[in-house]
Amino acid sequence: MRTFDFLGRLSRAFQDYPSLSRIIVVSTISGGGLIAYAEANTYNGSRGHIAHADAITSNGAHGIASSEAVPKKKKVVLLGTGWAGMSFLKDLNNPSYEVEVVSPRNFFVFTPLLPSVTCGKVEARSIVEPIRNIIRKKNVDISFSEAECVKIDPQNKKIYCRATVNSKLKGEEEFAVDYDYLIIAVGAQVNTFNTPGVEQNCHFLKEVEDAQKIRKNVIESFEKASLPNLSDEERKKILHFVIVGGGPTGVEFAAELYDFVNEDVVKLYPKVREFVKITLLEATDHILNMFDKRITNFAEGKFGRDGIDVKLGSMVTKIDDNEISTKARGNGNTTNTPYGMVLWSTGIGPRPLIKEFMKQIGQGNRRALATDEWLRVEGFDTIYALGDCATINQRKVMEDISEIFKKADKDESGTLTVKEFQEIIDDICERYPQVELYLKSKQVRNIVDRYRHLGQFAPLGGEQTAAQLPGDWVSIGHSSQWLWYSVYASKQVSWRTRALVVSDWVRRFIFGRDTSGI
Amino acid sequence: MRTFDFLGRLSRAFQDYPSLSRIIVVSTISGGGLIAYAEANTYNGSRGHIAHADAITSNGAHGIASSEAVPKKKKVVLLGTGWAGMSFLKDLNNPSYEVEVVSPRNFFVFTPLLPSVTCGKVEARSIVEPIRNIIRKKNVDISFSEAECVKIDPQNKKIYCRATVNSKLKGEEEFAVDYDYLIIAVGAQVNTFNTPGVEQNCHFLKEVEDAQKIRKNVIESFEKASLPNLSDEERKKILHFVIVGGGPTGVEFAAELYDFVNEDVVKLYPKVREFVKITLLEATDHILNMFDKRITNFAEGKFGRDGIDVKLGSMVTKIDDNEISTKARGNGNTTNTPYGMVLWSTGIGPRPLIKEFMKQIGQGNRRALATDEWLRVEGFDTIYALGDCATINQRKVMEDISEIFKKADKDESGTLTVKEFQEIIDDICERYPQVELYLKSKQVRNIVDRYRHLGQFAPLGGEQTAAQLPGDWVSIGHSSQWLWYSVYASKQVSWRTRALVVSDWVRRFIFGRDTSGI
Repeated sequence: MRTFDFLGRLSRAFQDYPSLSRIIVVSTISGGGLIAYAEANTYNGSRGHIAHADAITSNGAHGIASSEAVPKKKKVVLLGTGWAGMSFLKDLNNPSYEVEVVSPRNFFVFTPLLPSVTCGKVEARSIVEPIRNIIRKKNVDISFSEAECVKIDPQNKKIYCRATVNSKLKGEEEFAVDYDYLIIAVGAQVNTFNTPGVEQNCHFLKEVEDAQKIRKNVIESFEKASLPNLSDEERKKILHFVIVGGGPTGVEFAAELYDFVNEDVVKLYPKVREFVKITLLEATDHILNMFDKRITNFAEGKFGRDGIDVKLGSMVTKIDDNEISTKARGNGNTTNTPYGMVLWSTGIGPRPLIKEFMKQIGQGNRRALATDEWLRVEGFDTIYALGDCATINQRKVMEDISEIFKKADKDESGTLTVKEFQEIIDDICERYPQVELYLKSKQVRNIVDRYRHLGQFAPLGGEQTAAQLPGDWVSIGHSSQWLWYSVYASKQVSWRTRALVVSDWVRRFIFGRDTSGI
Repeated sequence: MRTFDFLGRLSRAFQDYPSLSRIIVVSTISGGGLIAYAEANTYNGSRGHIAHADAITSNGAHGIASSEAVPKKKKVVLLGTGWAGMSFLKDLNNPSYEVEVVSPRNFFVFTPLLPSVTCGKVEARSIVEPIRNIIRKKNVDISFSEAECVKIDPQNKKIYCRATVNSKLKGEEEFAVDYDYLIIAVGAQVNTFNTPGVEQNCHFLKEVEDAQKIRKNVIESFEKASLPNLSDEERKKILHFVIVGGGPTGVEFAAELYDFVNEDVVKLYPKVREFVKITLLEATDHILNMFDKRITNFAEGKFGRDGIDVKLGSMVTKIDDNEISTKARGNGNTTNTPYGMVLWSTGIGPRPLIKEFMKQIGQGNRRALATDEWLRVEGFDTIYALGDCATINQRKVMEDISEIFKKADKDESGTLTVKEFQEIIDDICERYPQVELYLKSKQVRNIVDRYRHLGQFAPLGGEQTAAQLPGDWVSIGHSSQWLWYSVYASKQVSWRTRALVVSDWVRRFIFGRDTSGI
């Protein structure tokens, strides 16, 4: 997500000038420029053609092209409609490619607002954008197939797909697609770390359907606890909400749930309010441990005052259908606690397609696809990987960045002042758009840690938000909530979703949350 | 639905004066007045108490009551949260009863807008109202249990219920509830007339979940038909939408689908537009045959011009997973047609609970519970039935109404002029609020047929609406659409749903329908 604006800006800036120097073409790692580079690299001398095609488009005189001997369009296949795939599509405007998008879902999800869907602050439909709405606004030949890629065959430049639509619709379920270039942007899946019982008994919060299920389940928990024939002990169990993982997703869900209990449950389910308990289990020493220490402290303090039971250094060992078992990191004591609902949000791992493909190409012991600095999967000129399914093997760029940092760090303090940082950030970005991707990669965390938070927000419930802003500014408290709203609203992908989310906030402000069990 | 405003107006008018004459108390067949009458009837002399309790409430001095010897509150159990249950709850404000509502769904659905949900004109959440929102605004002791009543035991004044919430939530699944008065308002279910394959292969449009499923399925049909590996024949089959039943539901769905195809599919799925076919099968001679003939003609004409294939006199005999088999009423010819999706909307029948209860009480050969003119199930002083699960055995009232009609029909023409009708309608309504219920009952159709359409609307797609208004006014065409919007908006049960539906219309007007497959 965070790479999005950045990449978009760059590719818009450079895409129309493919005849500029190599480093500028490389900069356009999202959008058509990515392919333009590959083209120039692989087929020497074809650069002229690409520049020509662009010129035709920018003159708005596409018809002329047909009278010349235009070569057959290259076929680009994009897998995935998440943030990475979106950033590629968004600024793609080179009409000399034919693009086919293959994804099991025909919409993009604005994932940062998924926690807000779980308790009804925002509607699921307000944070999705149909992919066909995005496609049809482009002047590029793009088609979409709602299917899942199940196998990649790099030797024959072919992928195998399976339709994901309702099985009651008959017809061929499998088909193959040829490609000249393949862009893999399928994202990742929840990592259970093979903890027994997690798959069977936990909710996740990765897809919009997950958020809808959680919402239904939260309401059902309150309905169930309100039935006449239960003991207080049973009510307590049903209304014990456990969150595993103190990262932004877990923290935001805890905050949403707390707000729901305090703003709506008190009015609609007054008799069971007293039985509600929210527990947040975190294996390390602090929640939100990737944020500034002040934010971590503030969040832990607020949750403490709210009565959210934050258990630090607590590792989940097993979850059966009644109890969750944890081990304390200090003394190794194990505890079994009855629960009503568990949200598991501890991290991500590769999807089966990627696992299988990594085995095929000899990367079987990795956690994500390794790519070179141009985002090409190592050893394959025509396969690219972006986003959560990929990591970059960044020898050369890392060396360059270290060099730039050293040059900018004039007092050789080992850190840069905000001013020093401001001076070099544009330079780095122009040279290496991949920097943003590095920032997500753990290997370079220690070097750029203080620069990766170009604005992070952790809504903590009760209109309290901890915000970390560019430079060294940390904003905590009530006012941040509106800042957060405006940032989320401005980051929405289309005017449509922007308007819908804002109107959802207004709806909730006026009418409260909808607690219908649908 | 149509009885709603009528009953509400009456019960608001009379509820606060329980000491008025019997006929006035009887008028309040919805709301607390229903029970007030029963009370007066069953326990002679208790009238004073009820009047007293009401007086306390209307003085806003409820506390005083506790110092007097107030008898234990009578327990009223209401089954169902549909139109009938709603009309009972809405105006209930007699605090001398304790009310428990039992229903498998914790929300009310504004059913006339269900067809609009199927293709995304209106969002599902905009036409539901959580029952607890309604309950908490009342000054009466009302509780809600999300459960299904599975058995009624009138001898012991007890019902048996089963919790319907997610089975993963453990605890007792069954419980019993005692009642002093039972109000049965569980509605009806779709009637398949035992046609083979209907249950397995058709969509229905009775619940909000049905509409959501249809919406998902419509989008999936277009995604499926857009996949690269299909023959034109297969695409035609997938995009053949069949509607069985030419009543308002079927007609409105056909119109919504037609609008969706012409407003959105053309833009988003242009390559498959040509394969779409909509067929409407009606067993009788005309669609919308309960409406004025002019409306029927207009609707058939418009559908014909739109290319919707209306097959009259066509009876469905079987639906397998590939084909729908029909028999022509005239020549008995049978036809088998491949289809992608079928909506079955031919009529309603009793739910299993009602079937079982009718057997228990010797009404086994009926299609709905028989009640007397006070809505009491025949033979039971303490059980009432309202809405689609009940019919009224209306000897006395029918005689009275015939009398009034004869008196009003001054020229003895056998029909009333609009003026004659205007003069007596208030009189009838004050005496017999059940008239509206009669109008729904087939037995009295011939007498009151020309008066039952106190405003009916059939949206026909493309902003065309046929409207039948009080008196003899029929409005057809573009302007009716806005009339229809305003009527639906004004009939919405709460300011909340009203605002949501209007904002959905605005959203669609600006952004088009959402075609995400969620």
